Amino acid sequence: MNIRIGMGFDVHKLVEDRDLWLGGIKIEHTLGLLGHSDADVLIHAICDAMLGAANMRDIGFHFPDTAAETDGIDSKILLRKTRDLIAQKGYRLGNIDATVCAERPKINPHVPAMKKCLAEVLECDEEDISIKATTTEKLGFTGREEGISAYAVVLIEKD
Amino acid sequence: MNIRIGMGFDVHKLVEDRDLWLGGIKIEHTLGLLGHSDADVLIHAICDAMLGAANMRDIGFHFPDTAAETDGIDSKILLRKTRDLIAQKGYRLGNIDATVCAERPKINPHVPAMKKCLAEVLECDEEDISIKATTTEKLGFTGREEGISAYAVVLIEKD
Amino acid sequence: MNIRIGMGFDVHKLVEDRDLWLGGIKIEHTLGLLGHSDADVLIHAICDAMLGAANMRDIGFHFPDTAAETDGIDSKILLRKTRDLIAQKGYRLGNIDATVCAERPKINPHVPAMKKCLAEVLECDEEDISIKATTTEKLGFTGREEGISAYAVVLIEKD
Repeated sequence: MNIRIGMGFDVHKLVEDRDLWLGGIKIEHTLGLLGHSDADVLIHAICDAMLGAANMRDIGFHFPDTAAETDGIDSKILLRKTRDLIAQKGYRLGNIDATVCAERPKINPHVPAMKKCLAEVLECDEEDISIKATTTEKLGFTGREEGISAYAVVLIEKD
Repeated sequence: MNIRIGMGFDVHKLVEDRDLWLGGIKIEHTLGLLGHSDADVLIHAICDAMLGAANMRDIGFHFPDTAAETDGIDSKILLRKTRDLIAQKGYRLGNIDATVCAERPKINPHVPAMKKCLAEVLECDEEDISIKATTTEKLGFTGREEGISAYAVVLIEKD
Repeated sequence: MNIRIGMGFDVHKLVEDRDLWLGGIKIEHTLGLLGHSDADVLIHAICDAMLGAANMRDIGFHFPDTAAETDGIDSKILLRKTRDLIAQKGYRLGNIDATVCAERPKINPHVPAMKKCLAEVLECDEEDISIKATTTEKLGFTGREEGISAYAVVLIEKD
C-alpha cells in the first residue's frame, strides 16, 4: 500500500509564568505549557503522527528533551525538521486532523491562525490541516486545567 | 490523495436523572450523560471525526452548546447534518471505527443495535461502522464512573 | 474503498508482583501490568485496531477475560489469532502506528525488540510496525504510574 497512517498523542502541564504556544501561535492566557521546548503540545502530536506514519520513531527520539540545542526551541522548527525527515524517506503529507483537549482557553477562535501558520511551516495547503477543540467537561487532568493534551492523525503517501 | 483521515474524541459527565444515550440508542443504566444535547458521546466523536476528515471545523463550531435550537436535541440529527455537510463538499464515508470507554454499563451487548441505528442515519452499510468497547480498569475519570469517553476514526473519499 | 481504518485504545493497571509485558517482550521493572492475560496493553490496542478496521468487534468479544483458555495467555497468541481473523475475511495489514503512554519505565530503548517481535507474529515487515512512546508529564493515572495506556491505528486493505 502506498498510503500510510500515523497517530500522535501528547500532554504538557499548565503552569504559571510560561507563554502558551499552541499550533505555532502564542495565545493569551493566565497559564502556559511547561516543557523543554516551547511545549507546543499540538505541534508535538502532529510531529509524532508524521514520524509514526513514516516509521521513523518519535519526537523524543529525534529531539530529546535533554539536548541543549532544543532548549526553549520553537516547535515550528521541530515540525519543519519532521517534514524534512519524512520527505527524505520519500513521503509526502496527505491530510492531518488534530484535536486539542483543553478546558480553557477557548481554542476555536484561534484555529484559522493556527492552520495558516502550520500550512506555511509544512508548505502544504491549509485544506490539508484540520484542527479541532474539545473540553473534557471538567473531568480528568485536562478538565482540572492541570494540563492540555492533543491528538493528531495523518495520512502520508509514497512520492 | 483522494482519501482523507479524521479522528474525534469526546467526553461527557455521568450524572443522575439523565437518560443514557449512546450510539443513537437509549441504554438502561442508573446514570446518564450530561450535556446540552442528549450528550451521546459516541455520536459526537463520530461527527468530529467526519468533520475533521473533511476539514470542516468541529461539532462545537457547527452546533454550539449555547444554541437554543440544539437544546436537548437528538444527536442523530447532528450526525445526519454532519453527513450532509461532508456530502456537500463532495465527500463520502469509507469506514468508521469507534471505541467507547466506560466502566459501566456493559456496552458490547448493545453494539449490534447501535450499528444498525447509525447505519440508518448515515445511509451506509453496517459493515462500514465498527463500534468497540473498553474499560480503563477503574483508572481515571472513566474508571471512577465520573464520565464516558469515546474515540472515532474515519476515512472519507472524494466522490 | 478497499482501504479501511481502525483504532484501538487499552489500559491496564500497574501492580506489584506481576511481570511487565509490552509489545510481546518482557521488560525489567518494579511493577507489572494486571490482567486476565499477560496484560500486554500495547498488543491489545493493536488487536483492537485490527479488529475494528475489519469490523469484527473487539478483543473482549473474541477473547473474553472470563474464559479459562485465555487465563494468563501470552498476548502474542491473541495477536496471531487476530491476524488470522482478519485474513479469513480477506484483509491484510497495511501499516500500524502505536503509542505507549507510561511515566516509567523508559520504553524507547525497547522499541526495536518490540517491532522485531511483533513483525514475526504478524508475518509482516518491521517497516509496517511503528511503536512510539510518550509520558503524560506526571498527569493523570499514567502520570501517577497507576497504569499504562496504549493507542494503535492501522490501515488494512482487501486482498
